[in-house]
Amino acid sequence: MIIDCHGHYTTEPKPLMDFRQKQIAAFKDKAPLPSFGAVKISDDEFRLSVEGNQLRIQRERGTTLTLFSPRASGMGHHIGDAKVSLEWSRASNDCIHRVCTLFPENFIGVCQLPQSQGVSPENCVAELERCVNELGFVGCNLNPDPSGGNWTAPPLTDRYWYKFYEKLVELDVPAMVHVSASCNPNFHTTGAHYINADTTAFMQLITADLFKDFPNLKLIIPHGGGGVPYHWGRYRGLAQNLNRPPLDEMMRNNVFFDTCVYHQPGIDLLTKLISADNILFASEMLGAVKGIDPTTGNDYDDTKRYVDALSLSAADKQKIFEGNARKVYPRLAKKLDRMKSAAR
Amino acid sequence: MIIDCHGHYTTEPKPLMDFRQKQIAAFKDKAPLPSFGAVKISDDEFRLSVEGNQLRIQRERGTTLTLFSPRASGMGHHIGDAKVSLEWSRASNDCIHRVCTLFPENFIGVCQLPQSQGVSPENCVAELERCVNELGFVGCNLNPDPSGGNWTAPPLTDRYWYKFYEKLVELDVPAMVHVSASCNPNFHTTGAHYINADTTAFMQLITADLFKDFPNLKLIIPHGGGGVPYHWGRYRGLAQNLNRPPLDEMMRNNVFFDTCVYHQPGIDLLTKLISADNILFASEMLGAVKGIDPTTGNDYDDTKRYVDALSLSAADKQKIFEGNARKVYPRLAKKLDRMKSAAR
Repeated sequence: MIIDCHGHYTTEPKPLMDFRQKQIAAFKDKAPLPSFGAVKISDDEFRLSVEGNQLRIQRERGTTLTLFSPRASGMGHHIGDAKVSLEWSRASNDCIHRVCTLFPENFIGVCQLPQSQGVSPENCVAELERCVNELGFVGCNLNPDPSGGNWTAPPLTDRYWYKFYEKLVELDVPAMVHVSASCNPNFHTTGAHYINADTTAFMQLITADLFKDFPNLKLIIPHGGGGVPYHWGRYRGLAQNLNRPPLDEMMRNNVFFDTCVYHQPGIDLLTKLISADNILFASEMLGAVKGIDPTTGNDYDDTKRYVDALSLSAADKQKIFEGNARKVYPRLAKKLDRMKSAAR
Repeated sequence: MIIDCHGHYTTEPKPLMDFRQKQIAAFKDKAPLPSFGAVKISDDEFRLSVEGNQLRIQRERGTTLTLFSPRASGMGHHIGDAKVSLEWSRASNDCIHRVCTLFPENFIGVCQLPQSQGVSPENCVAELERCVNELGFVGCNLNPDPSGGNWTAPPLTDRYWYKFYEKLVELDVPAMVHVSASCNPNFHTTGAHYINADTTAFMQLITADLFKDFPNLKLIIPHGGGGVPYHWGRYRGLAQNLNRPPLDEMMRNNVFFDTCVYHQPGIDLLTKLISADNILFASEMLGAVKGIDPTTGNDYDDTKRYVDALSLSAADKQKIFEGNARKVYPRLAKKLDRMKSAAR
């Protein structure tokens, strides 16, 4: 079984995107905000949106299922206010749920949070509970910068985030640390803001005792850990200079990198330096980088090929493809076990 | 000859640091600003500050000379105003000049610029001219984020920076893109802000035609190009998606990465992906990461060992250690040629 822990719904039905446009316009015009309840999207529209896209790619690449979350750049926590973000998050999560219900063997939900710049993340608890308890989602995307590139929230290690972490631990779901679109012209969204956020989050974790306070909190840092593996010596040295625990020890039960690194030498480096216990297979498809790499003839984001090509043991590859996802997303493991039992 | 293109004066004499403290306090108290002219530092103080440090390390590691600039985290362009920044930059550059005058074969100057958040970089032209024409400096450090982690200036590709670039080209000196300390609690200075800035700058360069406007402008992106080589596939793919020129073509005569990557696998990756024509040897000593890597028994920042260990041709290593520095810093090349003639 091959579990892709990082897939986004980037082929949303048009009515969802139209709703968002109307919502943003209404907020801007101080008009009454539209309600997503009035938007009708048929099962066929949902089927069609993934059949030629994510489902086709799963089949072609031979991956089993995708942990599926709303388009990351679309979360837009810097747009509107907390009310706008809540309605938009509920709409986005409901659409994920529709897809997961139609294709329960192919997609399992990961939710967007109704974060809003300047608003305590405690306001995300109810939507997290709804998605996990009612919709069967197994994780969430946590945005360390709801300001969209202005970085005005406290670091992830600040007590500001603790009430939300308490709920994550209580529900036994991990968070992928994932920013949304950048509204700061300095930062290209997928080329700078995403990678910077990953690097930034990891360095925050080095400097604090977050996992002493939350020994069961699990964070996934996507895009192969940002710039971290390439600068592994720098980070090992900084941890040493700052009298912090060794990085392997800090990461062990709490921090995981995914394989969204779009070339073989990058994946080689990742797996050379980071324990196979802390790497989750992922492609980010359909995502940040589309198209075929002329040097290989394959899609840039066909990360399965890079992992297949590694000279790792079968046991390590099994961890990366499946075992670690079961460990990091305990509700996914339970779900898969239930599905297996039901199929007997 | 081995030229280290990235060394900082992190062992400044105490009177310089005392001056800075007084200057910051005076600005805060709205008291008259102190003048550096009144500060006396003897030649012996300067000698002592580098003899057991940078000079010893050059001898021990077998490097020839260091392109030497003021402490990067000390530039503090977000502190005070343009007047404060100018006096501090002049003081810092004067101290670099004193060291370079005492040890002309070991240190060649690279200047700090009197940038100040919210102030046009055109205000840096006079100090750049002074450093290059009067003090014999061969380059400068250009801060893409004078706000110190709030990223409020326009991207490096914006016309905002053009008057300054015109002067760089006219004087035939390159700029190393180097941020200073972060005052944003999200960003650890050396562990996040530096690496993020490198990644950010590179992505800015992908998306614009800066080098069509300035075909002779040369920018060095330090710390091995930030997160870029590790995500080389992502950047190649993004350039392709955006209908931009291939990365090698964009970099060829204009963008250079240094070797400030503190472990062998990182340097291996850098040199595997980036042309040897675009890599400059550097250590950042005495810099970001001090101490001995327990996995090697050597200093983290002893980057010469990593380059020595590469299976590159002698010609490529010569480029990285010397040839490219002569090409990127034409005034350095002329200086070295003059020194050679004089020694005959």
